Amino acid sequence: MAAKVLQTNFDVDYVVTYRMCDDKAKGIAQFQKLIRVLNQVGLTTEVRRGDETSLLIFLKAADEKILADVVYRSRIRDWLHGIRQIQPVSDTARALTAEPLTQAERYRQIHHMITCSPEDGGAGITPQYGEWEQVEAIFPLHDHVKNKRWLTEFSRKTFLTPEDLDEIRDTMGEKIAYYYAFIQSYFTFMTFPAAFGFSCWVLLGKFSPVYAIVNGLWTVVFVEYWKRQEQELAINWGVKNVSAIEGKRKEFVPEKTATDPITGEKIAFFPAKKRLQRQLLQIPLALLCVVALGVVICTCYAIEIFISEIYDGPLKSILVFLPTIILTLAVPTISSHLTQFAELLTSFENYETQEAHDKAMVSKVFVINFITSYTAIFLTSFVYVPFATLLVPYLDIFSLTAKPFVNDEKQVEIPSPATFTINPNRLRDQMIYFAVTAQIVNFGMETIVPLLTQKGTKKYKEMQSSRAEKSAGAAPSISASDPPEEKEFLTRVREEAALPEYDVTTDLREMCIQFGYLSLFSVIWPLTPVCYFINNWIEIRGDTFKLTVESRRPTPERADSIGPWLDSLEFLAWLGSITSAALVYMFNGGNGPDGKPHAIKLWALLLSVFLSEHIFLVVRVLVRTAISKLDSAAQRKERSERFMVRKKYLEDAGLADAIKPLASAPNSPLVDSDGAQAFSNITRESLEEDARQDSLQDSDPSGRFWKRQRSGRESEQVGLGLIDLMDLGSRDKKKQ
Amino acid sequence: MAAKVLQTNFDVDYVVTYRMCDDKAKGIAQFQKLIRVLNQVGLTTEVRRGDETSLLIFLKAADEKILADVVYRSRIRDWLHGIRQIQPVSDTARALTAEPLTQAERYRQIHHMITCSPEDGGAGITPQYGEWEQVEAIFPLHDHVKNKRWLTEFSRKTFLTPEDLDEIRDTMGEKIAYYYAFIQSYFTFMTFPAAFGFSCWVLLGKFSPVYAIVNGLWTVVFVEYWKRQEQELAINWGVKNVSAIEGKRKEFVPEKTATDPITGEKIAFFPAKKRLQRQLLQIPLALLCVVALGVVICTCYAIEIFISEIYDGPLKSILVFLPTIILTLAVPTISSHLTQFAELLTSFENYETQEAHDKAMVSKVFVINFITSYTAIFLTSFVYVPFATLLVPYLDIFSLTAKPFVNDEKQVEIPSPATFTINPNRLRDQMIYFAVTAQIVNFGMETIVPLLTQKGTKKYKEMQSSRAEKSAGAAPSISASDPPEEKEFLTRVREEAALPEYDVTTDLREMCIQFGYLSLFSVIWPLTPVCYFINNWIEIRGDTFKLTVESRRPTPERADSIGPWLDSLEFLAWLGSITSAALVYMFNGGNGPDGKPHAIKLWALLLSVFLSEHIFLVVRVLVRTAISKLDSAAQRKERSERFMVRKKYLEDAGLADAIKPLASAPNSPLVDSDGAQAFSNITRESLEEDARQDSLQDSDPSGRFWKRQRSGRESEQVGLGLIDLMDLGSRDKKKQ
Repeated sequence: MAAKVLQTNFDVDYVVTYRMCDDKAKGIAQFQKLIRVLNQVGLTTEVRRGDETSLLIFLKAADEKILADVVYRSRIRDWLHGIRQIQPVSDTARALTAEPLTQAERYRQIHHMITCSPEDGGAGITPQYGEWEQVEAIFPLHDHVKNKRWLTEFSRKTFLTPEDLDEIRDTMGEKIAYYYAFIQSYFTFMTFPAAFGFSCWVLLGKFSPVYAIVNGLWTVVFVEYWKRQEQELAINWGVKNVSAIEGKRKEFVPEKTATDPITGEKIAFFPAKKRLQRQLLQIPLALLCVVALGVVICTCYAIEIFISEIYDGPLKSILVFLPTIILTLAVPTISSHLTQFAELLTSFENYETQEAHDKAMVSKVFVINFITSYTAIFLTSFVYVPFATLLVPYLDIFSLTAKPFVNDEKQVEIPSPATFTINPNRLRDQMIYFAVTAQIVNFGMETIVPLLTQKGTKKYKEMQSSRAEKSAGAAPSISASDPPEEKEFLTRVREEAALPEYDVTTDLREMCIQFGYLSLFSVIWPLTPVCYFINNWIEIRGDTFKLTVESRRPTPERADSIGPWLDSLEFLAWLGSITSAALVYMFNGGNGPDGKPHAIKLWALLLSVFLSEHIFLVVRVLVRTAISKLDSAAQRKERSERFMVRKKYLEDAGLADAIKPLASAPNSPLVDSDGAQAFSNITRESLEEDARQDSLQDSDPSGRFWKRQRSGRESEQVGLGLIDLMDLGSRDKKKQ
Repeated sequence: MAAKVLQTNFDVDYVVTYRMCDDKAKGIAQFQKLIRVLNQVGLTTEVRRGDETSLLIFLKAADEKILADVVYRSRIRDWLHGIRQIQPVSDTARALTAEPLTQAERYRQIHHMITCSPEDGGAGITPQYGEWEQVEAIFPLHDHVKNKRWLTEFSRKTFLTPEDLDEIRDTMGEKIAYYYAFIQSYFTFMTFPAAFGFSCWVLLGKFSPVYAIVNGLWTVVFVEYWKRQEQELAINWGVKNVSAIEGKRKEFVPEKTATDPITGEKIAFFPAKKRLQRQLLQIPLALLCVVALGVVICTCYAIEIFISEIYDGPLKSILVFLPTIILTLAVPTISSHLTQFAELLTSFENYETQEAHDKAMVSKVFVINFITSYTAIFLTSFVYVPFATLLVPYLDIFSLTAKPFVNDEKQVEIPSPATFTINPNRLRDQMIYFAVTAQIVNFGMETIVPLLTQKGTKKYKEMQSSRAEKSAGAAPSISASDPPEEKEFLTRVREEAALPEYDVTTDLREMCIQFGYLSLFSVIWPLTPVCYFINNWIEIRGDTFKLTVESRRPTPERADSIGPWLDSLEFLAWLGSITSAALVYMFNGGNGPDGKPHAIKLWALLLSVFLSEHIFLVVRVLVRTAISKLDSAAQRKERSERFMVRKKYLEDAGLADAIKPLASAPNSPLVDSDGAQAFSNITRESLEEDARQDSLQDSDPSGRFWKRQRSGRESEQVGLGLIDLMDLGSRDKKKQ
């Protein structure tokens, strides 16, 4: 679909889109400042027309020496923070040749030059924020040759190789590479539950305890394996501890600025206690989420049951879609409002670093997603199926509302608890929906719809401009004045500039939620992992398509993990041990609950949950310990590297012998060899005599004590004398 | 009791006791080797007579220069491993004056000289192991002045001050200081539950849910606080990450020795998988512990109940002590056998470092102690009280055994389930036993008995030697030949040499088990914390007495935490949330279980346990997060220190400007200021014309692209021209 592949990017490193504001004078002044500031940090600029009211500013490093300097400083910083072990070559000029930059690194460095604050030597441009509100976006250009190759290659193979991951890392940066590594590990790991789930489906049927145990075990092993894998990748990619370099948030509002008494450094300070108080607002926020989303979902759920299982009036075939429509409209609206609230709260919590901010935000987003994703199926499992017979009759409140639409004769019949029977397939159908339908819909929304929108918009614009050209002949098409040899290139850049940003957290969240279904509910329908396995094969390719064709190329970022989503995975695996046990207890053996609560023995339910959870926790400790004990190539590499660095440092500083053993103590009175004979005429008495004489001259008791035996030889002689005095034989006698 | 305080140690750093073996020639050869080796590493020796068959070898650093060298090397090592931030002064001679050694450090360094392997520059003496089997002990001498001051001072105050802890650290090393810091924090924290427990006892009575909640909360806060405190102390004491310097175990048997391909270092290698397999043996060991100890304890428990509550035959008053006697004899025997098993297994697991070995050992010891300490009260709570009426009648198997001792007429009456009533006070009585009696007994066993034994042995020896002198006049008393001015000193050293070693893990274990009672069962009797509060005041003083008077002075060791006991504390706090909830549910409200199982609703019990546990886990996450967010003085200090070190490094290397901002890019084409006027005659057309001409000379499309605007000024001009072309007004029109 990326129709024609343009072979060159004209060496452009970055593109800045500058949107003119209505106040022309202000816009011009700011534009001039922008160009100046960019040139000042060492970037060459070329300006071209963007769309109607925007300019495209092309940037590249003015000369490799400046870039080398920037790279060297960043490497020194990494080294001082312990991210890299090896001290960078001190010759700045050689920095780029000694360790060549990957594409991702180059873009990261240039992005740093553009965005970091003037105090740190950058241009300090903050898109869409503060004085740089006119700067719409800063982005690098796609490498279309590589993109096309990826799309073709990935669609031909089942598993991505480590080399593919390395290439993604070299092109897109570690943050995105971590997502690919994660989904790749997840996909590979899923071969097992997919195969096992299929066998269970054939042999054991639904709600098999065997499946639940194996599935639980699998979630533990996968999460613990991934944790390890994350660390290995961090070592291999040289990004371990990268989160320690704290990227300061520009929005951070310090309460006061203090000068550190020791370092003299200015520190922007915000009291932790105050932040803690603000964080307490998360509790009401979480409650709000539960109530707002909970009420909507529960209501729709109740309506749905009422219409599909009780209501028998007219328009049933239409009304049955009503709750789905309400849900589809209400839930995203409420979610987005709640997400906005969450964003406000996270900003209010006023974190100093971007990382802390993102982490706080992700945890809130997880709560919202957890509720929207799992409430319905929770209701079916733990409310509808066990209690439907008791609860459904109360749904006649809806029949009151429904009455006006119903003929008086054809009265809605409310089933008595005795006659009502639950729909035994509802739970399975729901799970199939989440495993199949929802995934397809999601793929469509995520990949197909943007593509169509994009194509549509393009066509619309083309039509509009051709019409404009035809009609008044007023403003000529923007591309008309492009130099012919750049025409193709500029068209492409304009297209890329119009694309949305790529956000990797959305994709990670999706995988997390999927993992949740697998861990929490897949015991309902053992084919779930099979569906997810297929889905994820497509997902990886779809995401690649989204990343390379449907989004602006993202600025490469470093990362040393998938971040807070890891905690979500752990939590979901844990929760899975509880829900799976409960589901198996309630539904196993065919004679599951029938909507009457007395059929379930609460103590047995609780006991199975309690046991399952604690077995899970114990197994987790065991798996964690076992995995942590296994040695890996990456760790060995890291250890030897560290050793070499230490050794080299000592050698450089002329201290090499400080780690070598002391061959012999330099001033030891015993350095001269042999001579046991030389002292053979020393007797204990003569020695003691010497000592007594010495002691007359020395009034210090310690001095006298240590002068009795003036050398090791003398100690030896005295010792031998003392041994002679010992009654060694008598000990044997006593023993007898 | 430390009768007379000797003011001087004659500058002795270390004492080595050398025990002669029966093979005199071998003993002499080894003794000679010992003296030579000690002198070779730079220690001065003095030999004196020990007891009948041993020698005392007094050691001190031969000269401060050698010691300074050793200290310098150790500091460099610390620095390379990141334990200290500041690079040590490179002038060896100044090492000791620039940063004076504490007593503990001095002893640690000298101990290192004596024990570390010859390859690392030490004498390689390993007491009671390998060729050094004859070396019985290596120990420093007590500082009697300081010891006496401690005993007096500590007995006068309630809380130890941070200065006291620092002094303990400076004298005894960090490992022991950590124990003191722990017990001190624990004792201080306990003021709260002691006061609260007392109020509960007065106002709410036993099994109060309020007490259980507050107590659970307290355990969480305490454990999390201590974790933090541990880290703070590590920073303050300069031992952070000290566990990273791995003390190699001399017993480690590598499977093969490989040469690292990168570093060329020889690495002794033992495959992790093989170790993992061996570690799996821990599972049968744990089961063995449960079975062996469990059977004994349960049997004794059953006998005790039988005798005290059912049996009414003759000798009851004597027989009632039978189970206690069996327990007192059997449990320590079985425990010690199991501990030996555990030791064997841990050795078999073949750890490379002493730390890993100790950790593995502690976890096994914890299992054994857990069973011996808590089984009895677990039985009372969760078997006897709920099920006694059902189970007790089965105890008549004992009456069969008892029959021979009973008159035929006076038949033992087996109560029928209807008539048997449980002893409602058993649980409380048992808890009081653990809170009061057991603590007193323990104190006696730990502090009083050793003192008496010591005094007794001394007296016995004195009597024996005076009798020997009187009788045959054969061998004169050993002390008779001591030089008069050393007489007192040597007597003291001989006494210290005869003392047992001090083992800090025993004391830590004791505190851990106590914490367990508090967390698991104190809801039974809210006065428990009050008793423990009092006990711990005495405990600190008793331990000081044990450390300073009843033990040889231990070699100072470094540590950065209390080690694996921390995990035990976390586990006990967690388990406490389960047992407390169960106890409160079963016994609250006075009408507790009466020995009939149907009185307890299992689902309600499980539900309360489930809720309690999960609330506990959530609260723990919250407390942990809150504590981790709070900033501390120690952490600030560490941060600024690290900052200073980095700054200094860059300054030294002449790289200071590498962290300063680039004032302006050196080769930027825009460095020369102003000139916007100079280019004002440039029009877009003229520029493009220039470009077109250039492009004729340049065949590379990128070159042509970037030459269109040859400077920032030109980009600016072109941009302004493009802005002029924009239809900015029309956008407003469209908006309307």
